[in-house]
Amino acid sequence: MGAENRKRTRRRGGGAEKPAVARQTRYTQLRAPFKPQGIFSDDAIANMHETALRILEELGIKVLLPEARRIYRDAGAIVDEETEFVRIGRDIVEAALKTAPPSFRLRTKNPDREQQVELGTLAFAPGAGCPHATDRERGRRPGSLRDFEETIKLQQSFDAMHVLGPSAEPQDVPVQLRHYAMARTQFALSDKPPFIYARGKAQVADAFEMTRLALDLDDDAFDAGVWIFTIINTNSPRQIDVPMAQGIIDFARANQLSIITPFCLAGAMAPITVAGALTLQHAEALAGIVLAQMTRAGSPVIYGGFCSNVAMKSGAPAFGTPEHVQATLGTGQLARFLGLPWRGAAGTAANTSDAQAANETLMSFWANVLAGATLTVHSAGWLEGGLTFGYEKFINDMEALNAMAELCTPPPEDIAAIGFDAVAEVEPGGHFFAAQHTMERYQTAFHEPLVADLSNFGTWSEAGGLTSTERATGIWKQVLQDFQPPPNSAEAVSRIEQFIADRTAAGGAEIEG
Amino acid sequence: MGAENRKRTRRRGGGAEKPAVARQTRYTQLRAPFKPQGIFSDDAIANMHETALRILEELGIKVLLPEARRIYRDAGAIVDEETEFVRIGRDIVEAALKTAPPSFRLRTKNPDREQQVELGTLAFAPGAGCPHATDRERGRRPGSLRDFEETIKLQQSFDAMHVLGPSAEPQDVPVQLRHYAMARTQFALSDKPPFIYARGKAQVADAFEMTRLALDLDDDAFDAGVWIFTIINTNSPRQIDVPMAQGIIDFARANQLSIITPFCLAGAMAPITVAGALTLQHAEALAGIVLAQMTRAGSPVIYGGFCSNVAMKSGAPAFGTPEHVQATLGTGQLARFLGLPWRGAAGTAANTSDAQAANETLMSFWANVLAGATLTVHSAGWLEGGLTFGYEKFINDMEALNAMAELCTPPPEDIAAIGFDAVAEVEPGGHFFAAQHTMERYQTAFHEPLVADLSNFGTWSEAGGLTSTERATGIWKQVLQDFQPPPNSAEAVSRIEQFIADRTAAGGAEIEG
Repeated sequence: MGAENRKRTRRRGGGAEKPAVARQTRYTQLRAPFKPQGIFSDDAIANMHETALRILEELGIKVLLPEARRIYRDAGAIVDEETEFVRIGRDIVEAALKTAPPSFRLRTKNPDREQQVELGTLAFAPGAGCPHATDRERGRRPGSLRDFEETIKLQQSFDAMHVLGPSAEPQDVPVQLRHYAMARTQFALSDKPPFIYARGKAQVADAFEMTRLALDLDDDAFDAGVWIFTIINTNSPRQIDVPMAQGIIDFARANQLSIITPFCLAGAMAPITVAGALTLQHAEALAGIVLAQMTRAGSPVIYGGFCSNVAMKSGAPAFGTPEHVQATLGTGQLARFLGLPWRGAAGTAANTSDAQAANETLMSFWANVLAGATLTVHSAGWLEGGLTFGYEKFINDMEALNAMAELCTPPPEDIAAIGFDAVAEVEPGGHFFAAQHTMERYQTAFHEPLVADLSNFGTWSEAGGLTSTERATGIWKQVLQDFQPPPNSAEAVSRIEQFIADRTAAGGAEIEG
Repeated sequence: MGAENRKRTRRRGGGAEKPAVARQTRYTQLRAPFKPQGIFSDDAIANMHETALRILEELGIKVLLPEARRIYRDAGAIVDEETEFVRIGRDIVEAALKTAPPSFRLRTKNPDREQQVELGTLAFAPGAGCPHATDRERGRRPGSLRDFEETIKLQQSFDAMHVLGPSAEPQDVPVQLRHYAMARTQFALSDKPPFIYARGKAQVADAFEMTRLALDLDDDAFDAGVWIFTIINTNSPRQIDVPMAQGIIDFARANQLSIITPFCLAGAMAPITVAGALTLQHAEALAGIVLAQMTRAGSPVIYGGFCSNVAMKSGAPAFGTPEHVQATLGTGQLARFLGLPWRGAAGTAANTSDAQAANETLMSFWANVLAGATLTVHSAGWLEGGLTFGYEKFINDMEALNAMAELCTPPPEDIAAIGFDAVAEVEPGGHFFAAQHTMERYQTAFHEPLVADLSNFGTWSEAGGLTSTERATGIWKQVLQDFQPPPNSAEAVSRIEQFIADRTAAGGAEIEG
């Protein structure tokens, strides 16, 4: 059971109304509640794939890391070392798609937190990669380690948040030491799959070692499971830079997960049409998948898509738009065309947790669910197109994630549940509050909201007339106050303290590339 | 083109950035962009239908209008005049379902505003039936004729709002004259299909006459088309009161549209389980459809569903909940089981246009679209579970309706749109802003937001740091200021003035029942 139920009971004052039977939820491993929907015809999708192959074959992509070019060349690609262009034949792409696993398990030491990753499963990740954090009490500020710790606690506290993310960047920790603090925080405060930045060979090697130590895995056990993940953003259009290429290689060698995600804003770093932006995204994702599979056949990858549009008059990135929805649906079709699990993203350009923020996030969030996204990134807490992680936004978004997780639990279909006898028992124009059928179920019948206030206007006004964003402040504060780290996390951290101390004394590890 | 585009151009200041080519939209007749989704198995749906037939056959419903009981009895139902109970055999239901039209056209004098009504079409109706109105400048107040006029102007100004609704009740007009004011306002300010309350035989007869006069139809032309609609709410559980039964009969006799909508809140006036509430809803809707078809075979009806749940600890109505989504999906399945067009409803219990309001409305709005609702009522402007029509809420909701309408326009699939040449033209790591493929399309490529602000945090803060609800105030004011009544509306109104004057002099028409 996640924090949502504990909070609600407290907020309602408990006492006489406190339920004797707590409602149990199972939000930890979801399967898509709907048949995946598309928006392009099968022919259009096949055309996009064919055109992406032509882009790779005829135009090529620029790969800045010599080792990556060597791997592509060894696989048969045509490499020009002077221009750093790599042209990848379709036979190479086909070979890579044969070994990329359609299904794998994202492991944790707590079996309840593991995620099966395949077409048909559904997982949510928080807003990620934000340089700033904001809440109503302390305002907007550059992200700090305290913000990162607090937002990891928030992520840990809700079962419908399935993996961790680099919510707010701890900018008060020097870059050469930051990956220690981020790994330590995740192992200390959570038992969910942790996120590792691919910021150069040395930092990634440190992260692998910390994971082995924290999870108490020997080399074979680490290699036999998928324990951590990173997100690889290509430099659209048609470029893979040094740390990204290195990340693909290092994660593949260690059998850890790369989510290969071109960030293609139609009209900016991608063609202005949704079909064009998707085709470029597809070509770049395929290039990354090839590099992973040519490094180690069978290494886990997720096909990534994050395609929206810019406002053409201002060039500002836009999210939750019809184009974002169309691109997400198309990404799902392309991923199913390949037979691979995939990630999409929710998002908003709003600067505060208001109706725009909710509209845009929910519009794109529904698009991801409807498209069958295996992993929906930025599903809670993301503001300003990713520049800020908002605490109150996180709580308001968790309301939607909890509701969607609830929808993944199909309603009981036993005929008895219809309650013919209850209908017979209640007179015309009467009510069912006291019916036997109601009494047997009322304590656990309905999903409980997290931040929604259902009181009437008078009661709500007397209580201060607070918006759900204002109410969310008290909720995240209570979640943080009640927070208990998961069992065994102290031991996990104790196993990496010496390593971190030694590496810190040695100067840490610089970002490369 | 709706107000959304005009507004946007003005808000951006026009001038140098003003587009030479305005983006054209076609939001007036939508078809569902997705395959309709369900949540119950076919067997479960068949069981609900079977149980509903048992409710009608074995338990019966209470019908308060003698004329209605006579019609049921003439059709073969078992009627107990003392208890007013009507038991309807399944053969009668089957006969009614054979004559209820699966498809009809909701007519207007402006062909662009007509709506084909059948499974697969999609139309949106505003928040309706609200005793109060609210906006940020004038606050929350009992609805007045000015509020009704203003909100009809708002409804008329957006193409993605397809039919009118009784947004804010004009409580400053005496009840015996209110239907004149409401009809007059709709004909004066709009050319969309008007809504008529079923508040007794005399008021409905007046409304029919005003419609004939305003639309300049002779009796045959009025009878040959479906020009107006009403919403029939049964008194769940299992009761149809006098004005509702009379409304079904009068609208059916005149070949006008009844949307027969039990309002079944699970745990209150319906069984606590979604399956149970849907079964009761289904039984009551069938009873209403039978009455319409036995009055006049082939008269237009829409199968109505508005099923959500209450918070069991407080009894407060809840909307946009997982149960509301499940019930909406199930209602769509039941309607498709019957082969009839159907209505669902979006909604929120929030007391102001905040993130909760947006989350709940959008969660239920998506459920309606996904379930294939022919008509989604309360899709914009509804607050407090229907007690208040919010002007700023309306604008924020129209953002979502416009986006959904845009999604009903499938993206172009011509292979040329992919832009292989554009990809070839732009160097790795470059941008597409100046590509030929972009230049040819940038003025019209993307949907334009209505109230969303995509500016960055600094710009947004300097402009006052307004929420989208605060920004919406300027938008609705501008829409009202720019409002022009549709062509020929002055003539339409002039044709009913004398009728209204005569009827007013005669004392109007009281509400009956």
